[in-house]
Amino acid sequence: MHMEQGNWIYLDHAAATPLDDRVREAMAPFETELFFNPSAPYAPAWDVRRAFEAARAGLAHAIGAKPAEVVITAGATESINLAFTAADARAGYGADGEVPDGDKAEPAAVHVVTTAIEHAAVLSCAAAFPHALVKVNKHGLVDPRDVRIAIRSDTRLVSIGLANNEIGTIQPLRAISEVVRQVRQERLSAGDATPLFLHSDASQCAGQVDVNTSTLGVDMLTLNAAKIYGPKQVGLLWAARGVPLRPIVHGGGQERGLRSGTENVAGAVGFARALQMAVESRKDEAKRLSALRDSLQRRLLKEFPDAVVSGHKKHRLPGLLHISFPGLDAERLVYLLEAQGVYVGTGAACAANKATHSHVLEAIGLEPEVADGSLRLSLGRLSTEKNTAYAGDLIAREVQGEYERLERNQTLMGSSNFWDTEPKPPKGLW
Amino acid sequence: MHMEQGNWIYLDHAAATPLDDRVREAMAPFETELFFNPSAPYAPAWDVRRAFEAARAGLAHAIGAKPAEVVITAGATESINLAFTAADARAGYGADGEVPDGDKAEPAAVHVVTTAIEHAAVLSCAAAFPHALVKVNKHGLVDPRDVRIAIRSDTRLVSIGLANNEIGTIQPLRAISEVVRQVRQERLSAGDATPLFLHSDASQCAGQVDVNTSTLGVDMLTLNAAKIYGPKQVGLLWAARGVPLRPIVHGGGQERGLRSGTENVAGAVGFARALQMAVESRKDEAKRLSALRDSLQRRLLKEFPDAVVSGHKKHRLPGLLHISFPGLDAERLVYLLEAQGVYVGTGAACAANKATHSHVLEAIGLEPEVADGSLRLSLGRLSTEKNTAYAGDLIAREVQGEYERLERNQTLMGSSNFWDTEPKPPKGLW
Repeated sequence: MHMEQGNWIYLDHAAATPLDDRVREAMAPFETELFFNPSAPYAPAWDVRRAFEAARAGLAHAIGAKPAEVVITAGATESINLAFTAADARAGYGADGEVPDGDKAEPAAVHVVTTAIEHAAVLSCAAAFPHALVKVNKHGLVDPRDVRIAIRSDTRLVSIGLANNEIGTIQPLRAISEVVRQVRQERLSAGDATPLFLHSDASQCAGQVDVNTSTLGVDMLTLNAAKIYGPKQVGLLWAARGVPLRPIVHGGGQERGLRSGTENVAGAVGFARALQMAVESRKDEAKRLSALRDSLQRRLLKEFPDAVVSGHKKHRLPGLLHISFPGLDAERLVYLLEAQGVYVGTGAACAANKATHSHVLEAIGLEPEVADGSLRLSLGRLSTEKNTAYAGDLIAREVQGEYERLERNQTLMGSSNFWDTEPKPPKGLW
Repeated sequence: MHMEQGNWIYLDHAAATPLDDRVREAMAPFETELFFNPSAPYAPAWDVRRAFEAARAGLAHAIGAKPAEVVITAGATESINLAFTAADARAGYGADGEVPDGDKAEPAAVHVVTTAIEHAAVLSCAAAFPHALVKVNKHGLVDPRDVRIAIRSDTRLVSIGLANNEIGTIQPLRAISEVVRQVRQERLSAGDATPLFLHSDASQCAGQVDVNTSTLGVDMLTLNAAKIYGPKQVGLLWAARGVPLRPIVHGGGQERGLRSGTENVAGAVGFARALQMAVESRKDEAKRLSALRDSLQRRLLKEFPDAVVSGHKKHRLPGLLHISFPGLDAERLVYLLEAQGVYVGTGAACAANKATHSHVLEAIGLEPEVADGSLRLSLGRLSTEKNTAYAGDLIAREVQGEYERLERNQTLMGSSNFWDTEPKPPKGLW
């Protein structure tokens, strides 16, 4: 990585990534001399427009799609919200997504299917519809047969994240897309015109997992620049031709009317560069990260045989290690590690996850006392063999210290379960 | 200005502004070492969170508002769309904007009022509701009495831009807010609980016009960083306490649930710095720009007495000159000027305005043959006495050249209206 890394070690690449120097370089001209509004009428503004469209073409190329199918957004959350408009079919909407006068047509009967372990953005969007949450197994894996069962006659959208952002499990998206294709076929045979689309949020994936749209077999794909060493608040939604998207932000008609607002040219150019690099270096980087991750995992499991590693053993983001230390308080661990310059996460870093238990860990059946001691260690370009090993030492030392502290306290209490097993004293006793 | 300006002169500040070096400096740390997700649990991420909230406080302070009332968005278009959710009152929505389960409550009867000369974003949002478009006079001015007449018993939102982006006319917002206040009072007296809110898009204004929320008397205000030498795709919506906004982008629950998605910390910090500078330098800059603008206007009117200047003579953006040369083709002028390094606009630079006549010029009653020869010259920090005078010379020369060309053609044709008055020859004649 091209970044000066002070005296700290970053193990939270799944929450945010630093801007790559090459991305910054690509963006720079559009933040300085080429600041023109791409819709302005003079030639230098056309250059800006061309750069923007070249970025769109680069993004499309990187995922094996056509430029006209890519909508550039202000991040994955917006992309996901836009994807869900494909479910919000209303009488009068054409397949071209044309909005009837006044946008007042009545919603048709509609149902969406997603999983119990999606990101808050997907779960919030699904909550606006009648919906089914497909369960996952203890490895966080979705069974395509369960998806088939969840699809009703009025289901119009299936949205399943390619890789989970907490435990890293990678879903069998290709097999799920096969299920979706079969349902479409059945509907077609029955003369039922109800559409069915498959969307996947792959925000955590580019750079570690193949995100080619044809390989995945999806109809819509969400990607995010901020997770792949690109600029913040830039994302894309790819939607295959014919998916009837509707704008959620109305105005000047940019992005073929699907996303109004003056284009973020520098952001798009940076995103394109970041995605290109992510895709090009994917195989090597995935190999490198999984080696680092596996060695960290081995080291911690050897020292703490009771620790629980979540996520699928094989189908997991190469750079992600979700590990739980039963009985410990992860928040304390975060602070202790941070004091020594090691930055780790505990789960999804988003506002909705503050002070709540993880719905992902609940879905895979992790006991609360195990879940509460969970660290999400996510490696990336800032990770080296040396700093990962060093971080492993520190984590082991602090975990050991916490267990010893716990034992001391329990001895003092005279019971290993003092606070848990004793009934609460009645209020007002003191 | 702190920008190297090559061999060109920029007269389109209303379409886009270059990033100020001081803004860039303020943003830099959050694009490099402080890249952390502000919701991450370790202390350096808290620093990022604090910087973000300090930026919010700075933005609020600059407009005389409270930080908790400011929602940071991905630009003015999004802010406007968010403001219009205040009109979309549904049974079950509380004044706190709390969203009932599934967001499926029925819309109440609702009507919105705006003007015929708003930006496409406002007009698109209004189009989703029954709405009235208040007319303007030939100077583009709204009469508050017309606003009063347009407000119906079910009107919940009035949205009127502070300054028009094409002709620069500044509306009597304070007087309009008084009308809104009176209607509220009447409703209250009649025991009618229908709310009424006043929103203003002031994207073109900060830095040239007072945008203090108390002075303006509005309930909601939209501002945009990209028009005030700040970063692209960053905006804010200020909404007074009690305005029942509803999210249009759902997810992680950032921005008090009103705008999900990982925060654009660098963008917010840059916006705050840009707004602070805009407000601080406003009086001097407005004076400087209006002097430059008036001198440019005098020079062109002196040479072309038939030219038409639009917008209110006094209540107009200091840096904006909308001038029409009857009979000329503005697009040709743009190209001729551009070839000599002078970049001018013809109207609003947004995708919806391509190849269409300006609804603003139509609303002020400009004849098509006058409207078609319109230039929007917008001055700003890149404008100096010298380069404005030089641009004035060039514009005068090219306009003169175009009139001469026109006259030559007309002489050749033997009629001053040859192409307009002769019936079209039948097809296939040649």
